[in-house]
Amino acid sequence: MTSRPLAVIVLAAGKGTRMKSDTHKVLHPLAGRPMLHHLLAAAEGLGAAKTVVVVGAGREQVEAAVVPLGVAVAQQQEQLGTGHAVQQAEQALAGFAGDVLILYGDVPLVTEATMRRMIDRLHAEEAPAVVVLGFRPSDPGAYGRVIADAEGRIARMVEFKDASAEERAETLCNSGLMAVRSEDLFDLLRRVDNANAAGEYYLPDIVMLAGADGRSSAVIETDAEEVTGVNSRAELAALELAWQQRRRKQAMDDGVTLIAPETVWFSYDTVLGRDVIVEPNVVFGPGVSVADKVVIHAFSHVEGATIGEGASVGPYARLRPGAVMKKGARVGNFVEMKKAVLGEGAKANHLTYLGDAEVGAGANIGAGTITCNYDGFFKYKTRIGAGAFIGSNSALVAPVTIGDGAIVAAGSTVTSDVEADALALVRPPQTEKPGWAAKFRNVMRARKESR
Amino acid sequence: MTSRPLAVIVLAAGKGTRMKSDTHKVLHPLAGRPMLHHLLAAAEGLGAAKTVVVVGAGREQVEAAVVPLGVAVAQQQEQLGTGHAVQQAEQALAGFAGDVLILYGDVPLVTEATMRRMIDRLHAEEAPAVVVLGFRPSDPGAYGRVIADAEGRIARMVEFKDASAEERAETLCNSGLMAVRSEDLFDLLRRVDNANAAGEYYLPDIVMLAGADGRSSAVIETDAEEVTGVNSRAELAALELAWQQRRRKQAMDDGVTLIAPETVWFSYDTVLGRDVIVEPNVVFGPGVSVADKVVIHAFSHVEGATIGEGASVGPYARLRPGAVMKKGARVGNFVEMKKAVLGEGAKANHLTYLGDAEVGAGANIGAGTITCNYDGFFKYKTRIGAGAFIGSNSALVAPVTIGDGAIVAAGSTVTSDVEADALALVRPPQTEKPGWAAKFRNVMRARKESR
Amino acid sequence: MTSRPLAVIVLAAGKGTRMKSDTHKVLHPLAGRPMLHHLLAAAEGLGAAKTVVVVGAGREQVEAAVVPLGVAVAQQQEQLGTGHAVQQAEQALAGFAGDVLILYGDVPLVTEATMRRMIDRLHAEEAPAVVVLGFRPSDPGAYGRVIADAEGRIARMVEFKDASAEERAETLCNSGLMAVRSEDLFDLLRRVDNANAAGEYYLPDIVMLAGADGRSSAVIETDAEEVTGVNSRAELAALELAWQQRRRKQAMDDGVTLIAPETVWFSYDTVLGRDVIVEPNVVFGPGVSVADKVVIHAFSHVEGATIGEGASVGPYARLRPGAVMKKGARVGNFVEMKKAVLGEGAKANHLTYLGDAEVGAGANIGAGTITCNYDGFFKYKTRIGAGAFIGSNSALVAPVTIGDGAIVAAGSTVTSDVEADALALVRPPQTEKPGWAAKFRNVMRARKESR
Repeated sequence: MTSRPLAVIVLAAGKGTRMKSDTHKVLHPLAGRPMLHHLLAAAEGLGAAKTVVVVGAGREQVEAAVVPLGVAVAQQQEQLGTGHAVQQAEQALAGFAGDVLILYGDVPLVTEATMRRMIDRLHAEEAPAVVVLGFRPSDPGAYGRVIADAEGRIARMVEFKDASAEERAETLCNSGLMAVRSEDLFDLLRRVDNANAAGEYYLPDIVMLAGADGRSSAVIETDAEEVTGVNSRAELAALELAWQQRRRKQAMDDGVTLIAPETVWFSYDTVLGRDVIVEPNVVFGPGVSVADKVVIHAFSHVEGATIGEGASVGPYARLRPGAVMKKGARVGNFVEMKKAVLGEGAKANHLTYLGDAEVGAGANIGAGTITCNYDGFFKYKTRIGAGAFIGSNSALVAPVTIGDGAIVAAGSTVTSDVEADALALVRPPQTEKPGWAAKFRNVMRARKESR
Repeated sequence: MTSRPLAVIVLAAGKGTRMKSDTHKVLHPLAGRPMLHHLLAAAEGLGAAKTVVVVGAGREQVEAAVVPLGVAVAQQQEQLGTGHAVQQAEQALAGFAGDVLILYGDVPLVTEATMRRMIDRLHAEEAPAVVVLGFRPSDPGAYGRVIADAEGRIARMVEFKDASAEERAETLCNSGLMAVRSEDLFDLLRRVDNANAAGEYYLPDIVMLAGADGRSSAVIETDAEEVTGVNSRAELAALELAWQQRRRKQAMDDGVTLIAPETVWFSYDTVLGRDVIVEPNVVFGPGVSVADKVVIHAFSHVEGATIGEGASVGPYARLRPGAVMKKGARVGNFVEMKKAVLGEGAKANHLTYLGDAEVGAGANIGAGTITCNYDGFFKYKTRIGAGAFIGSNSALVAPVTIGDGAIVAAGSTVTSDVEADALALVRPPQTEKPGWAAKFRNVMRARKESR
Repeated sequence: MTSRPLAVIVLAAGKGTRMKSDTHKVLHPLAGRPMLHHLLAAAEGLGAAKTVVVVGAGREQVEAAVVPLGVAVAQQQEQLGTGHAVQQAEQALAGFAGDVLILYGDVPLVTEATMRRMIDRLHAEEAPAVVVLGFRPSDPGAYGRVIADAEGRIARMVEFKDASAEERAETLCNSGLMAVRSEDLFDLLRRVDNANAAGEYYLPDIVMLAGADGRSSAVIETDAEEVTGVNSRAELAALELAWQQRRRKQAMDDGVTLIAPETVWFSYDTVLGRDVIVEPNVVFGPGVSVADKVVIHAFSHVEGATIGEGASVGPYARLRPGAVMKKGARVGNFVEMKKAVLGEGAKANHLTYLGDAEVGAGANIGAGTITCNYDGFFKYKTRIGAGAFIGSNSALVAPVTIGDGAIVAAGSTVTSDVEADALALVRPPQTEKPGWAAKFRNVMRARKESR
């Protein structure tokens, strides 16, 4: 609807004391990424020209997390209220003219769609000075109330403690999120005073000040769950659970079987094909893409992995970033893959570590195979050709290449390349000492008894 | 009560669109086997002489699943209603005379006991023409209502949309399941017409037609949960959870400790002895039998396995089909067994793969032992004698036999049989290069810094 | 408040039939230790001079569990009621003079604080003869009622079946727990008769008998959850869940992140630092202490382990008793530690067994490393020096020492000590048979086709 430039201000100056953490509250993860990054991703989705995070303490942590993403950080030295916090972003927005969306770092799950609705309303016919995001919690408790008509035109906003009984009976509450034009925002904020019990500069006062200028403000509504804030780890866990429950439902609606949905944990960006089956107790870290008809067996842990059609994962498979399973590939129990490609139809079914490796189509990696990819200083690559057969309990010392169709005998430690179609064998002769075990037992039993 | 022959018709012609699956709806698994197979098992339990599944699309899939079980499949080419669907079974039942039970492939948890009650009522003194299975859901919503007296004699059955306010106030609903004599069923069905809004032939109309012949029909009641139908993967997951919760409760009532019942997943046929302890996060696939006083530690995955008295499993044990643990045997962490017998008191405690193996009583399988059972073409057997000791990190290349009481030295790759009581040793001498590691580090550090 | 000696009597004579177990009911574990031991720990915390457990059947089991802790066991040969059960402790308390606290072995979660309140009330100004612990369940049902005034002075106690409608309307119920002076207790008990329907000697009758002597009794209240009793495995599981939920909440309040609190299982004594992160599906056995900033990844099982600051555990790590991870150490997937120390910053990231081992700071244990600590009779120690590098798939046959900074080549089975800074190599030459694999495949394919 609108094509005006957009700036996003994310308030993240709260102390987060109840988190009892050295990590900044807004950097605690939700659904696989920091709470703050959910908002930054939405800002990016909306094409924000500029994003500013306003922090109090912990500036360095937040800067380290967001400056590489092209996001600015402003600091609120003293905690003088939400209005004052927004003012700290003014310098970072110098020269910007357009719409400003004000979000909260600890209210991470507001959707792009809702944000868009806020901006669109700012440009509706009546052109409100301020658009407020309201919600109706099951228990309105001590939230500030928004007194508005059926079309969302705000008559006034009242803090709960200042509200009359009649006003308290209103169920529409102020989430704190706002959309304002940049030319209005900082002008109005300069006129906010701190003549209140707390001595703070309150952001919502700009609604009243705009009204005094003869300008209207509007409220749009959203679900209470969307604007749930996080003040403690228990609240964070509750929000995580709510998110997971929605995501699980979505997966099932999309044609994924979750045998025990309550035991499957997704990340914000998990992609799942149709007729995927996920058994109980599976954890998806960020960066996972799963094609159609894949089975993810119980107790699997999958992160940064791309899984091709019809592949089979686990149980007890650990796919780490850079793991790629081609069509029909199989990774079985107690197998770890990291920066490794398993070719079409290739198998690594038991007790194996594939790191920095490329495995060709149809290859068979025996139980207990280890790619020795690290010498304490550098990492090296193992290449295993199509149709190769790696005998069980082998160690492949990288850099090393096993040719197409080659066989490595069980128990071999391979240090030199193996030609295509050759057999590599690294094994001393088997010797046997008849009766030795019986004698050994007699000696040891005697020793044990004498102890 | 009755000794008349029984036929079962399972209606499975629904499209299952909401499943979003290439797999036929009734083949989606519940409690470890396809929904359809729960009903087929009940039919078998009732001694059904003939079972016919009526399918629409996906005939091949259903045939592949049930024809090997001696079950017939009939096809409903066009979706013309439940009455029409039942008619499609007529040819498959040609020559059959007896009772017919009509079930639904997506209503999988009706018990044998309930089915038996339906048949018994068909042979009660008043000899009803049709026995309907009714239920009282917490929200009767749009279900068809059954208007009946206290003895279950049906006055009439009404579709919700045709029901009066008074009829809608009735809480007894029609599950769709019926018992009818074969000689009545197809005669009545031929008289059902499709003069209704949907233009469909409705099965419940046979109750009215029987009434017009002066014959009574009866309803018997069951729990709503028992006749819960499945139309989406979310509903399937909900039914799975309900089933699991009942099964967990049953296990505890039978003398099994579930430390965290909500994290234990059973299959339809799991058998558990007394004083079994199951720790959190355990998955039982089909075909598991566990004797008394077994402990199944956390994160174990057990399928097709027989576990003897006092055995200890896991944590992180994977028992696959054909795994047999004798009395007091122990399988520890990151150990996989497949078609393998672990003798009385034998142990495989760490990081081991036992496939196609027989391990004698009291044998000790060291950490990291691998049975190399596959050469890319065939599988071979490993035999380990009673009291043998397999040193850690050994590979046993099958076919191979380790004699009773023999010892295999750690790190050996054994390719030839080992005599009883002998020591087998496959190991080159240890060489040492003094100072080599220090020099290596110096070189590598320099290289790393120069990058 | 009081400094009188204290004795604790734990009644554990119930048959526990509904547990369907050969294990005595009070020895079933809750939160990682037997129910009984929760009470014994509280008794110890209160400085009890003497503790007596009164058992019926299963005396040997209970004696084996508690006698080593200095706790006496008395036997109630016949089940003649709670009063009679307490009398059985008289002999074991011969010569004791002080306060007596009467607890129940199947009511395991009464807190030390509540017990202390009971004792304190016994020494309050009015000096009651008996202090009763009352509670208000959500459904008072058939519990005995306590009729008392607002100050807790008991007018009378009535069994539900003897109670008038007015008495039944009282919501304060008798938990059965009591505090009494030893000089009163056995005197009052001798005067309890069994003139009631069940022919039993009821402990609560001592309140009435004390009243007849002109002495008051008092009730203090506690939460219903605290006095929840256990009669079946399902009730035990429910109490376990309630305990876990409180513990999870406590952990989060203390500054621990639980991404999925409902999937984390603690023991009674788990100690967790600040900014610890616990991923989904983690089980803590007894004896675990975790320092600040540790991350415990998904699917880890940790018991008897001490984990230093900033360490990283799992996923799929199994730490067994005696595992010690120093600051910044890392244990990765499919790794087991038992009686093993991993030095500061040392790593064992994949598929490894460290048993009876000491690993120096900064050492790197390659994938698939096994410490061979057992010869079938004794266990031996492996020492790995600081900065050593153990190549992948190595077996270290204990007793053995790898010097500081030494390198063990991949695939080596090390049986002799390795000097500091040396390279140890146990590896035969690699041989190659060109074309062998291609020929083998031709032969095997032909054989497979001919079968």
